[in-house]
Amino acid sequence: MTKAEIITQRVEALRAWMRKHQLDAYIFPSTDPHAGEYVPDHWKTREWITGFNGSAGTAVVTLTHAALWTDSRYWLAAEEMMEGTPFEVVRCSRNVATAEELMEWIDTQHNHTADIRVGLDAWTNTAASVKAMYKVNDEKLCQTLELVTDLSPADELWAERPPLPSSPVTLQPLELAGRTTADKLKDIRREMERTEGDCLLVTQLDEIAWVLNLRGSDVHCTPVFVSYLLILGKNDNRPGPEAILYINENKVNDDVKGYLADNGILLRPYEALRSDLLEGDAAGTDLHLSTIQLDPEVTCHALCSAAERGNTFCAALEPSPIPALRAIKNEAEIAGFRSAMLKDGVAMVKFLKTLSPLPREGESLAPLEITEMGVDKLLTSLRAQQDGFRDISFDTIAGYGAHGAIVHYEATPETDIPLEPHGLLLLDSGGQYVDGTTDITRTIPLGPLTDEERRDYTLVLKGHIRLATAVFPAGTTGTQLDVLARYAMWQEHKNYGHGTGHGVGSYLSVHEGPHQFRMNYVPAQLQAGMTVTIEPGIYIAGSHGVRIENTMLIVPSSGCKPEEGTWLCLEPLTLCPIDTRPIIREMMLPDEIAYLNKYHARVREALLPRLDDEADKAWLLEKTHPLPLPQGRGEACAM
Amino acid sequence: MTKAEIITQRVEALRAWMRKHQLDAYIFPSTDPHAGEYVPDHWKTREWITGFNGSAGTAVVTLTHAALWTDSRYWLAAEEMMEGTPFEVVRCSRNVATAEELMEWIDTQHNHTADIRVGLDAWTNTAASVKAMYKVNDEKLCQTLELVTDLSPADELWAERPPLPSSPVTLQPLELAGRTTADKLKDIRREMERTEGDCLLVTQLDEIAWVLNLRGSDVHCTPVFVSYLLILGKNDNRPGPEAILYINENKVNDDVKGYLADNGILLRPYEALRSDLLEGDAAGTDLHLSTIQLDPEVTCHALCSAAERGNTFCAALEPSPIPALRAIKNEAEIAGFRSAMLKDGVAMVKFLKTLSPLPREGESLAPLEITEMGVDKLLTSLRAQQDGFRDISFDTIAGYGAHGAIVHYEATPETDIPLEPHGLLLLDSGGQYVDGTTDITRTIPLGPLTDEERRDYTLVLKGHIRLATAVFPAGTTGTQLDVLARYAMWQEHKNYGHGTGHGVGSYLSVHEGPHQFRMNYVPAQLQAGMTVTIEPGIYIAGSHGVRIENTMLIVPSSGCKPEEGTWLCLEPLTLCPIDTRPIIREMMLPDEIAYLNKYHARVREALLPRLDDEADKAWLLEKTHPLPLPQGRGEACAM
Repeated sequence: MTKAEIITQRVEALRAWMRKHQLDAYIFPSTDPHAGEYVPDHWKTREWITGFNGSAGTAVVTLTHAALWTDSRYWLAAEEMMEGTPFEVVRCSRNVATAEELMEWIDTQHNHTADIRVGLDAWTNTAASVKAMYKVNDEKLCQTLELVTDLSPADELWAERPPLPSSPVTLQPLELAGRTTADKLKDIRREMERTEGDCLLVTQLDEIAWVLNLRGSDVHCTPVFVSYLLILGKNDNRPGPEAILYINENKVNDDVKGYLADNGILLRPYEALRSDLLEGDAAGTDLHLSTIQLDPEVTCHALCSAAERGNTFCAALEPSPIPALRAIKNEAEIAGFRSAMLKDGVAMVKFLKTLSPLPREGESLAPLEITEMGVDKLLTSLRAQQDGFRDISFDTIAGYGAHGAIVHYEATPETDIPLEPHGLLLLDSGGQYVDGTTDITRTIPLGPLTDEERRDYTLVLKGHIRLATAVFPAGTTGTQLDVLARYAMWQEHKNYGHGTGHGVGSYLSVHEGPHQFRMNYVPAQLQAGMTVTIEPGIYIAGSHGVRIENTMLIVPSSGCKPEEGTWLCLEPLTLCPIDTRPIIREMMLPDEIAYLNKYHARVREALLPRLDDEADKAWLLEKTHPLPLPQGRGEACAM
Repeated sequence: MTKAEIITQRVEALRAWMRKHQLDAYIFPSTDPHAGEYVPDHWKTREWITGFNGSAGTAVVTLTHAALWTDSRYWLAAEEMMEGTPFEVVRCSRNVATAEELMEWIDTQHNHTADIRVGLDAWTNTAASVKAMYKVNDEKLCQTLELVTDLSPADELWAERPPLPSSPVTLQPLELAGRTTADKLKDIRREMERTEGDCLLVTQLDEIAWVLNLRGSDVHCTPVFVSYLLILGKNDNRPGPEAILYINENKVNDDVKGYLADNGILLRPYEALRSDLLEGDAAGTDLHLSTIQLDPEVTCHALCSAAERGNTFCAALEPSPIPALRAIKNEAEIAGFRSAMLKDGVAMVKFLKTLSPLPREGESLAPLEITEMGVDKLLTSLRAQQDGFRDISFDTIAGYGAHGAIVHYEATPETDIPLEPHGLLLLDSGGQYVDGTTDITRTIPLGPLTDEERRDYTLVLKGHIRLATAVFPAGTTGTQLDVLARYAMWQEHKNYGHGTGHGVGSYLSVHEGPHQFRMNYVPAQLQAGMTVTIEPGIYIAGSHGVRIENTMLIVPSSGCKPEEGTWLCLEPLTLCPIDTRPIIREMMLPDEIAYLNKYHARVREALLPRLDDEADKAWLLEKTHPLPLPQGRGEACAM
């Protein structure tokens, strides 16, 4: 059977099941109960029913039609993947379909008749999204639809459904975590006191891992483990447990069990949370749950509705206080980042050397015997040789030529192409090391470049450096600084449709909040100790893409007098040469070249002692050689 | 009697009146029923009771105490002005005291006893501020206070109270206004349809003047007239009036009456609005007012509560749609700005010439026989010689030396000092011309400068130019671009505590919204046709201040290809040389000097034909002479 035939059969079986349950439509989102960036296979029900494996997309099946909403990254790929299936692709401008789009489409499919029953899984839809669906139905559709949230076809129809992940949980040593779970719980409780909640429900896996100083390998590229954590308040110096970890006990060995017990963390089965919430107490404790703080934007409908329906009362629907606490790295974590960056830099240097040196002009260029997927494989193997390497931190983006213009390109056997000795390779990658997470993008010239490629490379580099050299007062947000990375390219009417930077976890998620550099307003203020990437880009469809990314640490600005208040600046953590060959020198300011030279001196000093191979050393020395400063300019002036 | 004795007598009389009415405290804000920037004398009750004439401050009088809250601009001035009176100054960080500060102070004065009666005038307190007081009283003070809003001591006790202003209303010709009132009403109704309101209450005087293409002279520096406007919806093609103007009929001559009648604008007495709202209909019409759109942030409590208490229903409390419509200037208004700027430029050139040329070093400097107040007088008289001059657009800020560091400095006979032939004069001023409003700041070297003065001047100029040269895509907010004006000075840990820019009215308020350049988030997007100032500054307390301000027009960026979308940039409207003598050349980038030269060429070309005097011409030629570009740099590169 072809893939399309398999999908068609699944849709038919689903429709039979829908008829049995009097359902007229069923919605498959791309999320799971933990609302993380990567979804374990067990919850990939949208992929199961559509065959489409992109990271974003929402499918709806009615008795007669089937459609998938996805954003521009995936329009073509989705059409290809689902060719011959009942699914049509609905081109969406955002990365998820809105409740309005979905509900109105279903309503239209049924000619606006009344009493249409729409099914969805309460566990894989967030409370906020279900609420939005109710709102659209109430306000716009005059309640023509009935939402049914307690039926899941995958539970019955998915024959070879992957089980829940069950990898073992490991301890993140205190010398790497830098702060004990007891202290983290104290910090969290201080924040909880601002609201009425007397316990905090944590469903996001990277938050749980951070609080408990534990790691796992249940999720692609992210060292977390499937579980829920209920942090109990201590307002009245209540005795008893500090928190309850809902987890499959098989994943927890005796060492970790002892550690959790020492920290007052009670273990309960993963499946027990909903009934605990409904019953309003944590079974096995004499603790009554009265007001639960949770965030309906990330908590699934099944748990949020249980908290509301039980004799618990869902009082403060604030965002979790954990991301803001986690964002400011402690000294042990910062030391870990520095260590991880050294290792990552060595791997990157060894890799980049295989693509260099650039043959001189006129010389005949031998074909590079590597494809995009080969780049990923080689780079990952070089990272894997480093101490403490655990995984890559996200799927490598190795886009050669026109593929570089596809912002989230991931080479597949169908799209994979060999590198040729001209043009640009955009390479965005990162590693999970036990002491830190890395995220780096380099754009590598493989031979002669067009003037536009060189110009775009230089504009992106200017933007990167302008933001990297910013000094700013405490209280500044990433939204205020974002323009610094765009100013130069904006002069030429060029821009990029993604954010300029995000926080990076300490051996955790490669994308962390709450702060970001982006055009849209993000209220989180930048603070010393935060990690943040700088990654401007230019993407010319059908031609090339450029992005240059370093991970930075926010640090106090040096030479700050007490009466001046608090001033901050950015220090690069990433250690890897930035290719200077594509640069159009005349477009660079003296202070930009000075920054690049200083950065390269730093890279050289850090990595040279870690290279054994003489050829690697020679390569690094050449690639970090300072560029001459422009003549006739005394002082290098900021902007 | 001294001023202090007069104030003391007034406070005693007030307390007697308070006892008669069983009031324990009375609150005097600095606002009026129209929440504008300048308050007509009739409503300056806070100044009447305290003797303090600053623009911001809130006074509270109890039977035993009296206090005035004001911000740092006025701390010293308020203490001086109120010396010997019963008032103490409470140093406030914001420019108005919060409801919490006031109510808690009153509560403390009365030892938290119950049933304290607090009086305030429903007409001069906004609905939002009164609501905030109720909220503090309910939530924090357990309702110890009773708010009495229908008693106004000024009505009874202020013997020589200035009458309501009664200057005549004049027509702003269509060739200057550029859009008819009928069309503006259509635009407003289109926005009103987004809410449930079937009429819109406009209480801000500059909004009324803009809608009706009328001007007045009731308010200091702003060509508006005291009135209210009720714009009636036309959802059901209702016949009858378009709007009702509540105004003292004596101010409206027959021409204006005819114009209003032609436009379907009904006249009603100024005092009739509250009863019309309470009765829920516009007397003299058969129109029933059902849902009134108004903004409680700027509408006084008397009117908002009437709209709520009458059989009207105060549905949509949205901000007025008028500022967003008014912000985008039409072609006639833009032509008017250009004309006004030419005239203002001529006045500025003639004035600046009196302070120049700078004597050469070593030459003995004759004292400049002018004081800060003299600067204001001379500059205003030069503006007054220009066609169509009506008034200054705000009180001139002429701060010499250390006075330049006081952001809102206004010289008084007590503070006035003569200029000396060294240091910097900060001069922020503007004119109201019938065809446009101007706002310009220049910082003028009067002789030798310190290194710090030159450095600060150069940093401010670099910030000004960096923002002035920005190109940005449609959808960008002023918050995103603000940092461009600060980047250079931030490198040296310097900053300024005010916004970087604001809209400017077309022969209306010098400060207009909704867009701004500022660090705090302002969601209004920048659009072609908006005016906006660029005015970064550096203020060194006790030493000097620098600010360089031009008024700009947002225009489409030239050379924009269709596939690139909409790109915008800023064109200077202000025409006046920027002094180049303080500039430290080595700190300037080639593109910054190129911008300055281009700007000066533009100023020269525009103003030279308008100068008759040969000495004026020679001065302008010298002051707009291009600076040499740095050697050895081919291309002038943006940032």
